[in-house]
Formats: sequence, structure tokens, C-alpha cells
Amino acid sequence: MAGVDKVVLLDFKVSMFGMRCRVALAEKGIQYEYREEDLRNKSPLLLEMNPIHKKIPVLIHNGKPVCESAIIVQYIDEVWHDKNPFLPSDPYQRAQARFWVDLIDKKAYDAGRRVWTKKGEEQEKAKKEFLELYKTLEGELGDKPYFGGEKFGLVDVALIPFYCWFYAYETCGNFKMEAECSKLVAWGKRCMERESVAKSLVDPKEVYEFVLHMKKVFGIE
Amino acid sequence: MAGVDKVVLLDFKVSMFGMRCRVALAEKGIQYEYREEDLRNKSPLLLEMNPIHKKIPVLIHNGKPVCESAIIVQYIDEVWHDKNPFLPSDPYQRAQARFWVDLIDKKAYDAGRRVWTKKGEEQEKAKKEFLELYKTLEGELGDKPYFGGEKFGLVDVALIPFYCWFYAYETCGNFKMEAECSKLVAWGKRCMERESVAKSLVDPKEVYEFVLHMKKVFGIE
Repeated sequence: MAGVDKVVLLDFKVSMFGMRCRVALAEKGIQYEYREEDLRNKSPLLLEMNPIHKKIPVLIHNGKPVCESAIIVQYIDEVWHDKNPFLPSDPYQRAQARFWVDLIDKKAYDAGRRVWTKKGEEQEKAKKEFLELYKTLEGELGDKPYFGGEKFGLVDVALIPFYCWFYAYETCGNFKMEAECSKLVAWGKRCMERESVAKSLVDPKEVYEFVLHMKKVFGIE
Repeated sequence: MAGVDKVVLLDFKVSMFGMRCRVALAEKGIQYEYREEDLRNKSPLLLEMNPIHKKIPVLIHNGKPVCESAIIVQYIDEVWHDKNPFLPSDPYQRAQARFWVDLIDKKAYDAGRRVWTKKGEEQEKAKKEFLELYKTLEGELGDKPYFGGEKFGLVDVALIPFYCWFYAYETCGNFKMEAECSKLVAWGKRCMERESVAKSLVDPKEVYEFVLHMKKVFGIE
């Protein structure tokens, strides 16, 4: 199948949602064309392929678009199911994995964003909520090597991109994830030993530079 | 398997998310115990089974909880996969179905809620957004009998509970879905011919009574 597949990813380098797709494609060993989008001047192709949300990432597989990163990752897992499956076969474990991905989707982006966009008391509240979320996630990880147990799975793919944003959150929020969630940081380091993750995540310093740039754009500080 | 399964649904009668689970269980012919929750005084069981969100619906299958309605419906489909499958086998069609369910999850509840909680200009804006959403959904339905094509599928299960809320939205917002989205209304009537839907949805007048009650509670009008 790989020989005839044409896979294109419309993406934006520092996007954690884009990184999910990059990790998933790398885990499956899929060759693809990466196209960086200018989010202030979106390409006609992006607007055509994702007319509802007009957002990256979009996976275009043989001309047909798949949108929304958690759905893209499951799609990749279902099409290329033989290599490194992200979901176990047991329906209950599948539902649990989807539950955690859904929680990350509902909370992680906003929780992190508030840490670097808010100030004073609002920022303290944001930090509290951020750390509550990550402590809940750490509780689910427990002593397992991965959220998927012995295997790097759907929840790991969904959460690992946030790991390279930790430095920006910590620096803007004046706290240390190592001190707050050491098991989760150890999990992040463990994931980074995988080539799929190491080559898909962005340097934390580059994420921080992006955050500083956005703070200027938004007129924060 | 059915003989040994114990299935409990923690629910709230007028909840569209609860109705999704009731429709899904009925489609599969699953016997279950229904437990109505008092949302102002949630049961210890609900808090124990869904400690993260503390929300209904929760499906408890042989003592183990599954939370979040879209995940519950997929779980039901995977456990009882032989009867009336909600998802096709093609990965692309599965991803498309998940995309529409995700859009409904992200927008339909809030869009509807704004129609009956807002007034004046804010309500006009809410109505516009509400109708935009439903016209987008109607566009996806097209001339198919169901969102799932010839088969009543995942998107149908996810959206049909909102159909019994249309009367409340229309009455509070002073518009007619029949005039705005006649194909979608025809779809709703078609779905109501299914026993699974007819017995799971609440009488639209009862939904409207609930909305009037909540408006009083919130001090609206």
C-alpha cells in the first residue's frame, strides 16, 4: 500500500496538535510531504480541505482530508494497523484511552495558554488549574512506563507534544514541572528516547521563542 | 454474553448526552438498569464512577465505568458489535463520522443553550450561529436517509437527541426549524420511526417545561 499512498500534512511547526500527527506518522514509518502553513495567511488548500474549522493539522491521504488531530491519529492507526498499534483490542481499554485523550483535548491547550497569557492572581489560578490537570494525568500514568502500559499508545501520542511546551510554561509561570510532576517528566524523557518522538517534537527553546513572540503580538507585558 | 452482563446507566432524563446512550443501548437490544441522578445532589456512585468530570451519563458495565457520551456510544458499539454496527469498516468513513460527532460535541449544546439563555441582540447572534451549525449538518446529510447513509449510524445516534430539543429552541428563539432546515426535520421524523429512538427521546413539551424551569432558576426573564 505504501508505494501508492500519497500523504500530505498541512501543519504548523510548534503546534502540539500537528506534532501528534507527526509522531503518529513516524511511529508507522509513513513517508509524507510536510507543508508549513502561515496561520495569518492560510493557504487555499487548507481552506478547501478543512472548510469547517480552517485549522491545521489536516492529513490529506490520496487527496482526501482528515481533520482534528485526535481523529487523524486514530485514522492513521486504523489505516496502518499492522505496525505499532496505538490502541489495544479490548473495548474497555480503548474507551479508557479515548477518555484520557478527550480530557487532554478539552483542557491541556487552554490550561497551558492561560499560564503564559495571564498575569498576577489570574496567572496563579491558571497555574493551579494547569498543575491539577497534569497531576491527574500523572496519577493515571502511575508506575507504568507509558500511558499505554508497556506500549507507547494513543494517550502517549496525544500528550507527548505538550512535553516540549513545558519549558515555556515553566519559564512564563515560574515553576518547575520536575518539582511538581517528576514521574510525568520522566515519562517525557522516556518518550524522547523514541526516534518518532525525538524527530517530531520541537526544541523547547524554540517553543519559548514562539511564546515570547506571541506575547508581543498580543501586547502582553 | 448478555446473560452475565450487568449494565447500569447513570443519567438525567432530558440530557441529550444521556439520550445518546439510551438510543445506543436500545439499538443493540441491551437490558440495563436506568438510574436518574439529581444533578444538584449527585449520588456517591456518580462521584465515584466519574471523579474527573462528575457528570452524567456514566455507563457502568460489570462494575466498570465508561464516561463521556460519544465514548460510551463507541464502547457500546465495540462490545456489542454484531448487532446494528454504528460505524462502517472503512477507516476514512469512520474518521468522517468521528469528525461530525466531534463537531456536534464542540458546538451543538452551547449553540442551543445560548438560544434559550440570551436575549435581544445576543439572542439574535446565538440564533444565527445555531442555524449555521444546523445548516452545515444538513449539508452533510444531503439526500441520504441517515448521516450513516442507508444505515442509522454514529452521527445519527449523536445528533438525534437534539431533535427533541428543537421545540424548546424554536419557542424560546421564535423561529421554525421546519422553515430553516426542512431536510433535517425530515431526518428527525425518519429516526423517530425507529423504536430505539422513539422510546429514548423525551417529549419535546417536557424538554420545554424543563427549559422554562431552568430559566426561572437562572433568573432569566
